[in-house]
Amino acid sequence: MIEGHGDDLYRYGGKVKYNFSTNIVSDMDHRKLTGYLSTVMSSIGSYPEPAPFSLEKMIAKKIDVEPENVVVTNGATDAMYRIAHIKSGKRAAIRIPTFREYQDACVAYGHEIAFFNDIDNVPVADSVWLCNPNNPTGEVLDKCEILHLSNNRDSTWLIVDQAYADYTQLPVITPAEAVESGNVILLSSLTKRFAIPGLRIGYLVAPREIAAEIRSAGMPWAVNSLAIEAGKYLLGHEADYHIDAETLHAEALRIAEEFRKSGINCEPTDCNFILCRLSGRKASDLKKYLVENHEILIRDASNFEGLDESYFRVAAQTAEQNDLLIKAIGKWMRI
Amino acid sequence: MIEGHGDDLYRYGGKVKYNFSTNIVSDMDHRKLTGYLSTVMSSIGSYPEPAPFSLEKMIAKKIDVEPENVVVTNGATDAMYRIAHIKSGKRAAIRIPTFREYQDACVAYGHEIAFFNDIDNVPVADSVWLCNPNNPTGEVLDKCEILHLSNNRDSTWLIVDQAYADYTQLPVITPAEAVESGNVILLSSLTKRFAIPGLRIGYLVAPREIAAEIRSAGMPWAVNSLAIEAGKYLLGHEADYHIDAETLHAEALRIAEEFRKSGINCEPTDCNFILCRLSGRKASDLKKYLVENHEILIRDASNFEGLDESYFRVAAQTAEQNDLLIKAIGKWMRI
Repeated sequence: MIEGHGDDLYRYGGKVKYNFSTNIVSDMDHRKLTGYLSTVMSSIGSYPEPAPFSLEKMIAKKIDVEPENVVVTNGATDAMYRIAHIKSGKRAAIRIPTFREYQDACVAYGHEIAFFNDIDNVPVADSVWLCNPNNPTGEVLDKCEILHLSNNRDSTWLIVDQAYADYTQLPVITPAEAVESGNVILLSSLTKRFAIPGLRIGYLVAPREIAAEIRSAGMPWAVNSLAIEAGKYLLGHEADYHIDAETLHAEALRIAEEFRKSGINCEPTDCNFILCRLSGRKASDLKKYLVENHEILIRDASNFEGLDESYFRVAAQTAEQNDLLIKAIGKWMRI
Repeated sequence: MIEGHGDDLYRYGGKVKYNFSTNIVSDMDHRKLTGYLSTVMSSIGSYPEPAPFSLEKMIAKKIDVEPENVVVTNGATDAMYRIAHIKSGKRAAIRIPTFREYQDACVAYGHEIAFFNDIDNVPVADSVWLCNPNNPTGEVLDKCEILHLSNNRDSTWLIVDQAYADYTQLPVITPAEAVESGNVILLSSLTKRFAIPGLRIGYLVAPREIAAEIRSAGMPWAVNSLAIEAGKYLLGHEADYHIDAETLHAEALRIAEEFRKSGINCEPTDCNFILCRLSGRKASDLKKYLVENHEILIRDASNFEGLDESYFRVAAQTAEQNDLLIKAIGKWMRI
């Protein structure tokens, strides 16, 4: 899906000041990173590694698996399309509502798709797609349930997208667990961990044979030189990129509570973002109002499979920004 | 193909000083571009446009076609894989020897591949792939022959990879001709035009319906923010990036002449690079010798379909660098 995702900030030029439409914190200080990138600019004059082996090696060391278990991709989206390609024409089961690209990748490669919601009742399929924490609901599944599913379906690829893992305090699948599982593919995103969605760097961790298959399904030079350099830098400077999952979650709960007071229905969340539902009004109207009157961007969530035009999603930012959001939406609810 | 391409500079750390292995000039001055990129670094903090519409619009204006005719891709390689995906399982005809990724993309999508050499005798196929100027031979086809082929095969997609168009003085297919053709897809590469292979920006020009199909075959955010920014900057500063095709071609001819004196067979070329053949010796041995003794990198061309271990490729650089190459190779030939 080219149109219809969150963080469509690019559409609004200078009109938006407060971006709640992306599930990423917006107040990271990138000055050291960009300073570093300025010193490695000469890398644009040569081809990048055809596959980012050196970055894969560094990530493997960091998360304590073998380099053979790690595949760096052009954002996590690239991983989704490679997996869908490998499983072309087969059966996919996707837990909804969720990030749209699993479905789009599966459609692009002619999968027979079954949607489901109940983790205890997963359709038989060649690939099962879970998002955990789940976008857009913020729900984190009990990790034992995921490992149980993995055990019971050993010929199924179980794709667990943990792009938002750093935004929850609940336990998620570890790289070692994915490697040992035999069938779990863990998707991770430097984009979300370091708040650098412009750079496009994701990676996956999987058992060796699966990782090898996904690596060969990629095209050469899929990740550009500056993204590779940024990835290497960031791995060495994780401490500078602290995500305060506890505070962000508390802020998300506070926003939800305030929204409920205004008459908005909010799903329970285990991380920094909340799925919200209006009664008898359209999320697209609220989005338009907020951009035009409050320089605020939210995610119209109506195009998630299983949702309708009443849904929107917001991600907690700083307390001050969240106050502005609560106030602005409260105002619209009284119109 | 992940391993085996040219410009494998990344393998050699600081060991290589003179890079003849890529068909790109290596003496471009990127200081203004990198200075500009330093000023737009904040773009890494937001998602790029899901498809680079604004850059497509600028390119369209520059080459005088409609934005609907232009698709910007993650390097030209991305375009090849999208096209192969659309034509999954169909018949492809590839003129060889040539750039390996046409074949690899077609294999990845289960094409039935016919290789050919004679442009007057092209196998019947759903997609025909030509490289013009051709990598690795440097040959430029008569453009009337290409247009004639396009006319005679109106239900065939004719992919013409003109990545090296700026490195020849001979006429090539124009964007307008591709748009009017009904079936020609012209691949272009900002990588080669501006000598920025690290950044990964390519684009294609095609009739509207074909371009739309290729655009939807891509995943969102395939091109990263800095690559998009660089593309926009470069379109406005073409004059700073002069490629002296005449001099480079003359240098290539001079290298070929000197090589022949040393007993190396060289194909005729219409641009800046030359395909060379050793008698009874291996290109891989020559490559190893040059890295270890002369800090020089060449392209072992043995893995091009139709070639064998005696072939290598070099691209002309500055006259001084070319002198070093001629001398070093002459020395090895006398060992």
